[in-house]
Amino acid sequence: MILAATQQSGAGDMKFELITPTAPISSEVHGARAKCLQRLIRLGLPVPKTVALSFDTVRSLAAGRDLDPTALLAEFGELPLLSARPSAGLADWGGPETVLNIGMNPDTVKKLARRVGKKAAEELFVRFLHAFAVDVMRLDPEAFPDGQTAQEALQAYEFEMEEPFPLDPGTQLVEILRSMARGWEGTTARLLRQAQGAPEDAGLGLVVQDMALGLGKGESGAGVIQFVNAATGAPQITGRYLSQAQGREALETENRAIYLTRDPRGKSLEEVAPEIFDSLVKAGGTCRTGLREEMQIEFTLENGTVHLIDAVRVPRATAAGVRIAVALAEDGVIGRDEALMRVEPQAMTDLLHSHIDPDAPADILAEGIPASPGAATGKVVFTASGAQALAAQGEACILVRNETTPEDIRGMHVAQGVLTERGGANSHAAVIARGLGVPCVVGATDLSVRMREKELVDPSGRTIREGDVITIDGSAGRVIAGSVPLAGAQLDDSFATLMSWAEAVTDIGVRANADTPAEAATAARFGADGIGLSRTEHMFFEDQRLTALREMIFADDDGDRQAALTRLLPMQREDFLEIFSLMPGKPVCIRLFDPPLHEFLPKSKNGVRKLAEAMDLPISQVTDRVDQLSEFNPMLGLRGVRLGVTIPEIYEMQARAIFEAAAIRHRDGQPVVPEIMIPLVSAMREVELVRARIEAMAATVRAETGIDIDYRLGVMVETPRAALRAGDIATQVTFISYGTNDLTQMTYGLSRDDAGKFMRDYVQKQVFVEDPFHRLDTEGVGELLTLGSERARAAHPDIVLSICGEHGGNAESIAFCRATGIDYVSCSPYRVPVARLAAAQLALSEQVSPKRRTLSHWIKTRIARKSG
Amino acid sequence: MILAATQQSGAGDMKFELITPTAPISSEVHGARAKCLQRLIRLGLPVPKTVALSFDTVRSLAAGRDLDPTALLAEFGELPLLSARPSAGLADWGGPETVLNIGMNPDTVKKLARRVGKKAAEELFVRFLHAFAVDVMRLDPEAFPDGQTAQEALQAYEFEMEEPFPLDPGTQLVEILRSMARGWEGTTARLLRQAQGAPEDAGLGLVVQDMALGLGKGESGAGVIQFVNAATGAPQITGRYLSQAQGREALETENRAIYLTRDPRGKSLEEVAPEIFDSLVKAGGTCRTGLREEMQIEFTLENGTVHLIDAVRVPRATAAGVRIAVALAEDGVIGRDEALMRVEPQAMTDLLHSHIDPDAPADILAEGIPASPGAATGKVVFTASGAQALAAQGEACILVRNETTPEDIRGMHVAQGVLTERGGANSHAAVIARGLGVPCVVGATDLSVRMREKELVDPSGRTIREGDVITIDGSAGRVIAGSVPLAGAQLDDSFATLMSWAEAVTDIGVRANADTPAEAATAARFGADGIGLSRTEHMFFEDQRLTALREMIFADDDGDRQAALTRLLPMQREDFLEIFSLMPGKPVCIRLFDPPLHEFLPKSKNGVRKLAEAMDLPISQVTDRVDQLSEFNPMLGLRGVRLGVTIPEIYEMQARAIFEAAAIRHRDGQPVVPEIMIPLVSAMREVELVRARIEAMAATVRAETGIDIDYRLGVMVETPRAALRAGDIATQVTFISYGTNDLTQMTYGLSRDDAGKFMRDYVQKQVFVEDPFHRLDTEGVGELLTLGSERARAAHPDIVLSICGEHGGNAESIAFCRATGIDYVSCSPYRVPVARLAAAQLALSEQVSPKRRTLSHWIKTRIARKSG
Repeated sequence: MILAATQQSGAGDMKFELITPTAPISSEVHGARAKCLQRLIRLGLPVPKTVALSFDTVRSLAAGRDLDPTALLAEFGELPLLSARPSAGLADWGGPETVLNIGMNPDTVKKLARRVGKKAAEELFVRFLHAFAVDVMRLDPEAFPDGQTAQEALQAYEFEMEEPFPLDPGTQLVEILRSMARGWEGTTARLLRQAQGAPEDAGLGLVVQDMALGLGKGESGAGVIQFVNAATGAPQITGRYLSQAQGREALETENRAIYLTRDPRGKSLEEVAPEIFDSLVKAGGTCRTGLREEMQIEFTLENGTVHLIDAVRVPRATAAGVRIAVALAEDGVIGRDEALMRVEPQAMTDLLHSHIDPDAPADILAEGIPASPGAATGKVVFTASGAQALAAQGEACILVRNETTPEDIRGMHVAQGVLTERGGANSHAAVIARGLGVPCVVGATDLSVRMREKELVDPSGRTIREGDVITIDGSAGRVIAGSVPLAGAQLDDSFATLMSWAEAVTDIGVRANADTPAEAATAARFGADGIGLSRTEHMFFEDQRLTALREMIFADDDGDRQAALTRLLPMQREDFLEIFSLMPGKPVCIRLFDPPLHEFLPKSKNGVRKLAEAMDLPISQVTDRVDQLSEFNPMLGLRGVRLGVTIPEIYEMQARAIFEAAAIRHRDGQPVVPEIMIPLVSAMREVELVRARIEAMAATVRAETGIDIDYRLGVMVETPRAALRAGDIATQVTFISYGTNDLTQMTYGLSRDDAGKFMRDYVQKQVFVEDPFHRLDTEGVGELLTLGSERARAAHPDIVLSICGEHGGNAESIAFCRATGIDYVSCSPYRVPVARLAAAQLALSEQVSPKRRTLSHWIKTRIARKSG
Repeated sequence: MILAATQQSGAGDMKFELITPTAPISSEVHGARAKCLQRLIRLGLPVPKTVALSFDTVRSLAAGRDLDPTALLAEFGELPLLSARPSAGLADWGGPETVLNIGMNPDTVKKLARRVGKKAAEELFVRFLHAFAVDVMRLDPEAFPDGQTAQEALQAYEFEMEEPFPLDPGTQLVEILRSMARGWEGTTARLLRQAQGAPEDAGLGLVVQDMALGLGKGESGAGVIQFVNAATGAPQITGRYLSQAQGREALETENRAIYLTRDPRGKSLEEVAPEIFDSLVKAGGTCRTGLREEMQIEFTLENGTVHLIDAVRVPRATAAGVRIAVALAEDGVIGRDEALMRVEPQAMTDLLHSHIDPDAPADILAEGIPASPGAATGKVVFTASGAQALAAQGEACILVRNETTPEDIRGMHVAQGVLTERGGANSHAAVIARGLGVPCVVGATDLSVRMREKELVDPSGRTIREGDVITIDGSAGRVIAGSVPLAGAQLDDSFATLMSWAEAVTDIGVRANADTPAEAATAARFGADGIGLSRTEHMFFEDQRLTALREMIFADDDGDRQAALTRLLPMQREDFLEIFSLMPGKPVCIRLFDPPLHEFLPKSKNGVRKLAEAMDLPISQVTDRVDQLSEFNPMLGLRGVRLGVTIPEIYEMQARAIFEAAAIRHRDGQPVVPEIMIPLVSAMREVELVRARIEAMAATVRAETGIDIDYRLGVMVETPRAALRAGDIATQVTFISYGTNDLTQMTYGLSRDDAGKFMRDYVQKQVFVEDPFHRLDTEGVGELLTLGSERARAAHPDIVLSICGEHGGNAESIAFCRATGIDYVSCSPYRVPVARLAAAQLALSEQVSPKRRTLSHWIKTRIARKSG
């Protein structure tokens, strides 16, 4: 059996370290639990005598070395009744189950009977016997039923093992420790801890502790106490206590346990034993201050005396994590920097969105790709106009499409959630939804979305019709029939406090991409430094504007075109005024019109017919124009600055609207310095041509209003060529913003709308470490960023550099941007907190171990700019 | 009048240089004609006495300086009867008309009458009077009708000018020379010569020559002779001779002139005056050898004596240029290198295609963009299948489409020409047509192509129906109703000779892109070094294959997919066998499957219906699959190596077909080293994955056949990222070929199919110096090429680098490629001669003035490779 197999190695004393305030205990050698217990001891807290076994000793045990426990047992005196617990390098890395009551045998039963009574002593022996047989020796649990006597259990053990139960405490201890050591090396344990980030060779330490019995005379028992709410982080004593119990029994049998504080639901320790309760609370305070963390404490009472058996970091939700960190810092227990470092940036997104109660039952229709976090419930609609109609009635809806196009954006604006059958994590739907902060599931390919029938069919054939209620979980990618209880966004004061601390230490700006006043308001709420990308095209999808834009597209001559643009001018001016007013005193970067014109023309026959009617044109003329403007690869077609060069009137109208809005703000005593960004540039000459027109328009508005608008002109670098030619381009502009979405598309030759079909396969086969639309490809796209930035700064040292793609909100990408000398990142409003916190952590970790920055020049100018 | 206006500057002697064998005459000072005449004189040929006026002198004249011609006239003795001719720096730069008989006045009439008779002498005076009045003084020609007497002409002159005709030869000469000098400075003359490449400040020299009269006793007259056919360059004495005539009258009045050699059509100089004819032929030979060029000689006979008045380079068609250069070199008159330098590479394309007789009347329907050179006549068809049907009946056809898609390629293969309503010079139709060598006009936007009605409507409303005959001129972009006489391709031995000489001196290889056996045969005919790009996807558009491919696309499981691919295997093997056999001993680079699968599915409802029937599937299933595979930006979608990674069975089938075909060649004693190229790579891992599969397939075929196929694996670099990561990628492969078409598209973010809409505008506004799809963008795309090449060679010094985009055939791009260390270019078969000649010229001009090469390493390895 196992015993036989372990006798292979030589013998020796079992090495251990008695945990005293001065003993050489460290997490790296003995594990986190051993270290934590030493800290409690140093704080003068009543921890039973404990010894620690190092990783090496545990490895020896696992390897089968026959170690003599005599010296160890001698530490614990005459009636050694012990517990053994795992002590991994980090508490999160888990470990084998704790074993209690080691040392029980008929002899100890007798001795113990004097203290706790015969029945209880015998019961403890049986419990230990069962644990040893089943957990250590892996015997069949059915051979050890509840209610066995000790005698029966001993017989059953001998029958199964064909050898007697080891009565000797030393033998028991060695077998238990070896079993724990071997459990650590099992495949499942390794996978579990590696999923938590443990290295492959992570070691396990063990602690062996004198049992505080929790049984017997006086107030004896065991409980668990913590001083904050695990979900919210708010101060609140929670836990349970159970008389005549051991370990975590109080939590395992809540119905028998009592509360800790006074509670209308039942008895409490505070009432039963107020002094004990007080000393527990006091110990908790000592623990929090001394360990600089909110701990969950396992305690045992023995005849009215408190023993602290163990303490672990309170497991917590993200919101609680933020609140605990901020409270610790505010109480002076930790510094603000440390509070910032303790919150995982990515987890911030959990705070900002509603989510599904994880315990609520869910009737899953299908799984898709989680594209925009948060959960939403509403009636199914299949068209943007349907969504608008429902919204007008104040009804929540989920917009369901095969895939979305820019025409759907007004529907996405009003919908509570978006679901598409096709598309990947970077499809149109996904990108827009993230920008809007609307929960979204894409690529739910198991669902069949039948637009014509206005129905949705799940793999089992179940049909959801327009008006039926569904719930989507954009964080997990689930589509659920009916409604499910949702918990709302969790933004409290501590969130705002943490953000303000983050802002104070970051050395890279964080702006938001915001196209609409709603998004601008969200950006302001999350503390963005300004708007880094305001796309103007979405503004044209409202009915009245769409009509004017289409008139421009169908204009026969310059006069008609100009007339249509003149109708658009006041509307655009209003857009800009509103956005400026939502960002008082902060910069707003407006990107000139970017998409191909055909995006504004109908695609269906019916749409063409309606448009022909509305414009009083023959259908054939509309069809001809639609055909004429259609493109094979719209991403690479007549859009961006190419429109600005070939139909300059559009940019002129936009520039006028920007300048006029700025003039109004100026007149109202709230001046603004608008930033105007030219999209899709690939050659300097494009910038020259547009710049000349914009300068002329600035002069015109100055002449008309008498106000000299201060503005900045910049370029969006989205093509590899623009990055390579950034030196030339920089001579023409005051800022450059990398549109890393498009730049990634063109560098890889990969459409984000079409990549969904194979991205999963590519990541699985390790072609891409991660989706390059999610995590900036530092080797390819990143090199273009670096080259471009070096060249731009060489040609124009004061140029302001930024990125405004999806990557702006990704922590690893922000690290790259800082190293490349980017001045600010701009991301969707809902990612501003993530980006801000990530940037703060990067700045803080660099203070500890400063890394050489790529562009030393940049540091100097940044300091100048920060103080300027 | 003019005379008054010219009296402004000071006086002085008119400077001139008497042309003698040793006089300091140069083209740079006196112009090409003066230099040419000096060369004739040096050769001992009978040139009348001539003086040359330098550019500076002529400028003084134009500026109005009053120069005294006395010394000049004194050179010509007692009866100075002179001609004046222009002498520009290069003969091609033109100049004012020659003026004859300067010095005529009543006095010279009398003297001359003794030699030529009174009537002829008076006639000469009137002719000169008319020339002076009309050409020099710009008087109204109507005042000087034919048949005027000298007296009448003198009166008319005085009436018009209000001053008498200048009788003094000196005054005549100065006015004539000044008029010629001023003519040179006129706007039209300047534009004309600048169009021929003259610099802005190009000067004009003048030559003044003693008249050989061509009138009078004995055999007197004038003629023009050359010794080659201007159209073909073949040896052939052509020209005319006219008794009692001057200058080029023999050519101007052919009906009165006689032939030079014996001719059934009439009298000839050879018969009339055999000795004179012989001395002319002898002079011609001296001229050819001495001037190292085929010259057209103007001669005058004066009483049986031959005078050579002038000689110019024979104007010639491209084909003649090639033949003349080769003949001169074969005769040892010039070196082979010089012969190579004398032919304009771009002009070679004229040789390779049929063209329209420029003099034939043409009924133009519309003008479009010239997309693929050559002319073709045929019946209009509107579908690929229509083209195939006509071809099957042996009828010529022109395929007319709104625009072409890959489905049309089989139609383009069999059509004589292609015409599309939409698209630019780099649209699908244009690129494919150039590859196929099929004449093509695209972007004929004035035409309305009505596919449904199967008719073509021109701007005037004229309708061309299917079956009507049209002609397209792909060199000029014209669409012509009906048929027009065509001249065929002009390839003779001298073409082949020139190509072989070019090949001997080039240090950069020239391969062809060839997808079909027909293209491979063309490539072989034009002397390509091999096939640099054989696209395999076109092979799948034949009916039987398309069906199998579609079955693969619709396969429900791996088994079905494998079965469909197994059916394709023997067909692919046959394709490769055929291409290998057309290129014996030369490398063939096969690109694995590249296009997105949706290109193989029907787009129309009707097509879907038919496919559903053919495959026995419900229409909805076909529609679903079509929808599922459709892409927003096919250029950036699931294609190339992305298919190879996600559906590896396709590449496995192709690799097997290649290896099996190579094994068959090996068994037949004609071993081949196939090159296998992976398209659309953006990351090294893609190459690793495909490479592993291909190596496994090579092992399988080796095990099956017992033949160990030597093959090369390479990557097509089309994405900016692949260029940036060329260092990694180079470790995996033996060659890298830049697909500069796609690389340009992605670097600019510009679809060549969609760029047509604004490319003209962009070039006009100087955003692009030239269409970057035509001329390699050295600043952007070129930098990626340079970076990629440096990195690839650093990682893998022996790697073979090439480009295989449209740019391969462009001379400037070839220069860039040589400088970047590219080993070979690959272009469409019809551009191989252009590329070869351009490469030869680059190599030769570098021998004269060697430029430092970018990668010195490369030169060494190239030498090693050439000799190895």
